[in-house]
Formats: sequence, C-alpha cells, structure tokens
Amino acid sequence: MNTDPLNIVFHGQNATNFRPGFEALIEPQHRISDLSDGLDQPGERTLYENADVVIGIQLNNTMPQPLRARLFHAPAAGTDAISTALLPAQCVLANCFGHENAIAEYVMASLLMRHVPLVRADQDLRQGRWTFWAGRPTALRTEMGAQTLGLLGLVVVSLPFTNSTQGLVDARAISAMRPDAVLMNVGRGAVIEEKALYEALKARQIGGAVIDTWYQYPTPTQSECTPSKFDFAALDNVLMTPHMSGWTAGTVRRRQETLAENIGRLSRGEALIHVLHGPR
Amino acid sequence: MNTDPLNIVFHGQNATNFRPGFEALIEPQHRISDLSDGLDQPGERTLYENADVVIGIQLNNTMPQPLRARLFHAPAAGTDAISTALLPAQCVLANCFGHENAIAEYVMASLLMRHVPLVRADQDLRQGRWTFWAGRPTALRTEMGAQTLGLLGLVVVSLPFTNSTQGLVDARAISAMRPDAVLMNVGRGAVIEEKALYEALKARQIGGAVIDTWYQYPTPTQSECTPSKFDFAALDNVLMTPHMSGWTAGTVRRRQETLAENIGRLSRGEALIHVLHGPR
Repeated sequence: MNTDPLNIVFHGQNATNFRPGFEALIEPQHRISDLSDGLDQPGERTLYENADVVIGIQLNNTMPQPLRARLFHAPAAGTDAISTALLPAQCVLANCFGHENAIAEYVMASLLMRHVPLVRADQDLRQGRWTFWAGRPTALRTEMGAQTLGLLGLVVVSLPFTNSTQGLVDARAISAMRPDAVLMNVGRGAVIEEKALYEALKARQIGGAVIDTWYQYPTPTQSECTPSKFDFAALDNVLMTPHMSGWTAGTVRRRQETLAENIGRLSRGEALIHVLHGPR
Repeated sequence: MNTDPLNIVFHGQNATNFRPGFEALIEPQHRISDLSDGLDQPGERTLYENADVVIGIQLNNTMPQPLRARLFHAPAAGTDAISTALLPAQCVLANCFGHENAIAEYVMASLLMRHVPLVRADQDLRQGRWTFWAGRPTALRTEMGAQTLGLLGLVVVSLPFTNSTQGLVDARAISAMRPDAVLMNVGRGAVIEEKALYEALKARQIGGAVIDTWYQYPTPTQSECTPSKFDFAALDNVLMTPHMSGWTAGTVRRRQETLAENIGRLSRGEALIHVLHGPR
C-alpha cells in the first residue's frame, strides 16, 4: 500500500539519536530531513514550518512554528519543553516509552551492587586475597531478596515531574523511612526535596541513596556541571549516576518503532497511539 | 512433644558458620557440642565417636569414626570430602541447599554489571562529568535482556564436579561459542578446562568470563593463594571472584533450617530429607 508522502523532520541533537536506520522502518515515499537545534542553517526554517511530522523535544516562542504539522512526536516520555499552545489546531502531540526494560536493569543492577561486592572481590582475588570466600564468616553478604522495596510510582521513586509530585518526598517523608532504607530516584530530581535529601544522607538518617535524576543539568553552553548545589560528591552513601537509567540501544530501537508506527498510522489516516494532546 | 535427646556435634570451622542461633531451631532436650577441625582437644574424640548427629563437611581415615551416628549432615551441597565407606551401617548422609537465591543474585549482578556502568558513572559524576547521560550518543549502553543465555546445569555453568563433568567445557566447546560470548562458572572450576579457558580469554577468542569457582584454593596452612597456575589476573576480560556466589546470611539461615528439620525428623523417627546415602 502506497500512501501520500509525508515530510518528516528530525529536530535537534536529541532526535538525532533516533535517526540511524529510520528509513528502513517507514514506507519509502516519505521524506526525512535532519535539522539543527537552532533551525538557523539555510532552508531549515522552511522545512520546519512545512513539516507534516516533527520529531523533537522542544517547542517554544523563540522558534519558528510548525504550521502544517499533523504530528509532533517527542522521542521521549517527557514533553515539558513542548508548549502545546504553539501547536497548530490540527496537530497531535505524542510521546514514546520503551525505556522500561532499561530502567528495570538499572534498578536491579544498582540494588544488587549493594549486596554482591563484585568490584572489591575481583580487585582482591587478582592479588590472591580470598576476601569473600564462602565459608569465611566475615565473607557473609546480604541478599537483595530479603529486603523490602517501597514503591512510589512504578518502582522506587519513578514519578514524572508535575505540580503534584514536586517535593513530594520531603524531610518529613524521609524521616518516616527506616534508618537502613535506601532511597532511589529514577524519575525526576525535583520529586525529592533537594536539601532534605542531602541533609538526611549527610546525617546518615537513612542508609543511603541511588540518585539518577538531579537538580542541575548540563546546558548547550556548559557541557558539564555539578548535579546539585549541595555537595553530594562528598558523601559516601550515595551512588551518583547522570540520568542514564533508561538510555540503551534497546530504548532507542523501541522508540524508533513507536515513531515509525505513528507515521504509518498518520499516512494511512488511522488513529495514533501515545497521544497526549490535540487535535483541537 | 518431647522426644529422646540427641547428641549433636558441629565439627570444624565450616560448621561453625551454621551454629549461631541453632538452639532456637531445635527442641530443647538435644545437646550440642562444638568440636575443632583436628578433634584433638580434651574430650572431643569421645564426643565425636558418640554423636547421634554429626554436622560437618569432612570424614576420612585420619579421623576418629562416628560409630554411633545416625545422621551425618553436610551443611553444604558438596560432600566430596566425606568418605561414605567410613560411615557406620545405620548412618544416613544428607546435604543442604538453600544457596539458590544467593547464586541467582550473583549471576544477575555480574551479568548486569557488564551492561550498566554504575561504577564509572558514579566516579565521573562526582567530578561533574555526565559521561553516560541519556541523549548523548556515546552514552548508549547495551541491555542484558537482549542477550542470549546458554545454560549448562541450572544456569550458566553451575554443574557439580563429577567424573562426567570434569573438563566438559574444553577448547573445542569454547571454540564453538560466539566471539562476544561471556562464559560464567559458578559450579566447580574443573568443569571448564583450565588451560583452554585461559588461552581463549588471552587470545580474546570469546568476549569474556565471570569465574567464581577455581582450580586452586587456600588451604588450612596457606590462607591466600592465586586461584590458577595461569595468570588470569593479567587479563582484563575476566571478572574474578573467590567462590562467593552462594555465601549469604540467607543461605546460612536456609541451611540451618534444613539441618534443624532433619534433626527433628530423626528424633521423631520420621523419614529424613536430602538423603544422599545410607542406611546400609
């Protein structure tokens, strides 16, 4: 079945991650253009304004408007940076998931790491030291399976950032946790109150934390930065990772499949999936 | 129900691991004695020879014989060091499991570690470097869920050491593996041919290995040693751990429960569980 060709634009660096091999996932008559974040290269503004499908994570009033778009598709779950007021009336906003497996592996790996001391065992045995040898009483380790897991969202703190989740885990919530509890955040940093988290860890009020989502992030002009105004790096009871839990080749592939599925549905006039907004 | 008292001996250092809290698991009329590995302290030989139940991992012809024993119970799965010919006719040999959960966590942790770079991510972010930040193309990691797992035994190489498993994985078997395959051994070292494994890793014929069970172990007179006559420590594609996969507080507790269950059954005249041998 050949349908009308669609003009598809991949907008910006983030969308570029989902570009390799994308032709193979959609019908051949569609046209794909790759546009820079600034939309300031020759012809980019026109391509953006005339696109049928925009794949991107940002739309604000400093940018041209995608006046003809029928589908604005974020290749991500979060669409906070896409101003729906700027979408034309006929346009649908959709998002992508596909990061669930990746996050599950991150959660399991970081929880297991607290119980199975592989790094130190390997370092020691390379020097002939059998520190964790079965049968040595001092080698006994704990089991993850014996722990209690508290869920806030799907698992662990995995809530998105909204008005109702901001600061949901505050000093009072943390003080209600067990002294050996480990707080993990793979949702959005601001769901856990920054100062309360830092002070609870510093005072060893809880057992520790695994923090993947933060309070400060790199920007286009500053590629590296500290993740908080508090000195989490000085604490030994926190595992600090850079918002990486969902970022795998599998996530990219599954999101590409969602994008391609919606492009196929749009070109055949079928109902779209993962719709968040529109048409008006 | 009060039954006849049994004389129970815990023999040697290994059995000592299963001793704390054991009274609480059995009926109060039984008598427990703790004996050294050498059975050479005053009264130990008599206690051993008159025991109804021996908990230990060793019986050979340099030792006194447990002439009155009705149950010789290894607090471990392997009973290679217990000579059944030396057990009296009325005696049953039993073993323990309970390490399955612990090994499963070790296997998951060491496999996940290859895919989720938590240690480096944490080291870098503490210095403000967002190396594995989602969206950075160079940060994309792989997923364990996308891998193929080959099983030899229950999972991975988890076979016990017997005549038929010795050297089962030899150079020919390794050469049949995919070049990106990772070989994991949590069973017994000798199931994988030592030289073939070392040479395949050194030549990067396979992707890597996770080795928990080895070819050389510490002895009572030498508490630390290299785990092989080959220099595995010089290889960067092997994770080396000291036969630790099953050794957790949970394993000890579950094995204590098996030991206590069999002591209860023996004292009530019921059929024992996990019986490997006897009575004759």
